[in-house]
Amino acid sequence: MQKNESQSGNNEVKPLNSVFVGCSLDGYIAYKSDGLEWLDKIPNPEKEDSGYYAFMDRIDALVMGRRTFEIVLGFGDWPYKKSVFVLSNSLKEVPDQLIGKVEIVNGDLNLILQNLHARGLYRLYIDGGQTVQAFLKEDLIDEMIITRIPVVLGDGLPLFGMLNNMLWFEHKSTEVYLGGQLVQSHYIRNRNY
Amino acid sequence: MQKNESQSGNNEVKPLNSVFVGCSLDGYIAYKSDGLEWLDKIPNPEKEDSGYYAFMDRIDALVMGRRTFEIVLGFGDWPYKKSVFVLSNSLKEVPDQLIGKVEIVNGDLNLILQNLHARGLYRLYIDGGQTVQAFLKEDLIDEMIITRIPVVLGDGLPLFGMLNNMLWFEHKSTEVYLGGQLVQSHYIRNRNY
Repeated sequence: MQKNESQSGNNEVKPLNSVFVGCSLDGYIAYKSDGLEWLDKIPNPEKEDSGYYAFMDRIDALVMGRRTFEIVLGFGDWPYKKSVFVLSNSLKEVPDQLIGKVEIVNGDLNLILQNLHARGLYRLYIDGGQTVQAFLKEDLIDEMIITRIPVVLGDGLPLFGMLNNMLWFEHKSTEVYLGGQLVQSHYIRNRNY
Repeated sequence: MQKNESQSGNNEVKPLNSVFVGCSLDGYIAYKSDGLEWLDKIPNPEKEDSGYYAFMDRIDALVMGRRTFEIVLGFGDWPYKKSVFVLSNSLKEVPDQLIGKVEIVNGDLNLILQNLHARGLYRLYIDGGQTVQAFLKEDLIDEMIITRIPVVLGDGLPLFGMLNNMLWFEHKSTEVYLGGQLVQSHYIRNRNY
């Protein structure tokens, strides 16, 4: 895996762990048994981009859970140009065609982050419900861009989990996409509260 | 309790069960042990109204759970001008000063609604987590106005619960209140999906 040259030697880059995720009104990121078919209900004839590509442009790498990784693998073509780090204790190796693009990591999240920062990877896209929850538990999420899909699913994989301490954010902006069906809000962690 | 005269004899009024609620980013309407203190973190020096009074103006009555009723009782002064129906199997009577303002109801939700409609009460504010969940389970919620507070609470009383069927809504509008800290989205149930 390449060091991110654009960041190396730049001491002013601040680490930034970001969440960019779509979820239902009741906070699920996938329906029962990982299903994403419900998302097809949203008509998107123009394949309107709801900020995803601009977000991907400003990150250095992705950190995702094993479950999310396997869902993405199921899509066929590998969609990411940036390096992907998969959090997993069970996976030992990545498929041949992804060597150099994907690395398996595990252990203490702070140590994983130190390691990524040392490699010049500061701006990280944290993806997957359990992974986001693990990062939130250690107050390691700096911003969240949450797109609400206008459905109450009633069951599925939740974005959020239990926390011992509440985490306050500052609302930065809200955009409405897809003819007004998707509401995307951008929140920045406020650690002064 | 008075019949709502403005509605009587008007056959064009359609029943409308509405939710108007504030919740955290992770979907809690109250912190552990019913606490609402976290809401005090939102600075509101001007007591800016985030659409609440306009909403109250257009409803005929409130239907709330026993738990919400008891929280409201704890506020001291009774805040509602409209009739309140408290869903409860355990409560048998209301405090003396609320006779004529509050009624206890129980049993089948559809029968309760029929009874309220027969009394000219069509536009109902459905309040309280468990009550909203019970109405959603029977697909009896027609609109939801949800105000997101920029905090991940990590625990508390959830707005939503388990459902056997997903419920699609149509996003009508989103407003930002309180210097941009509260994001309020208005959703209308779409039963054509």
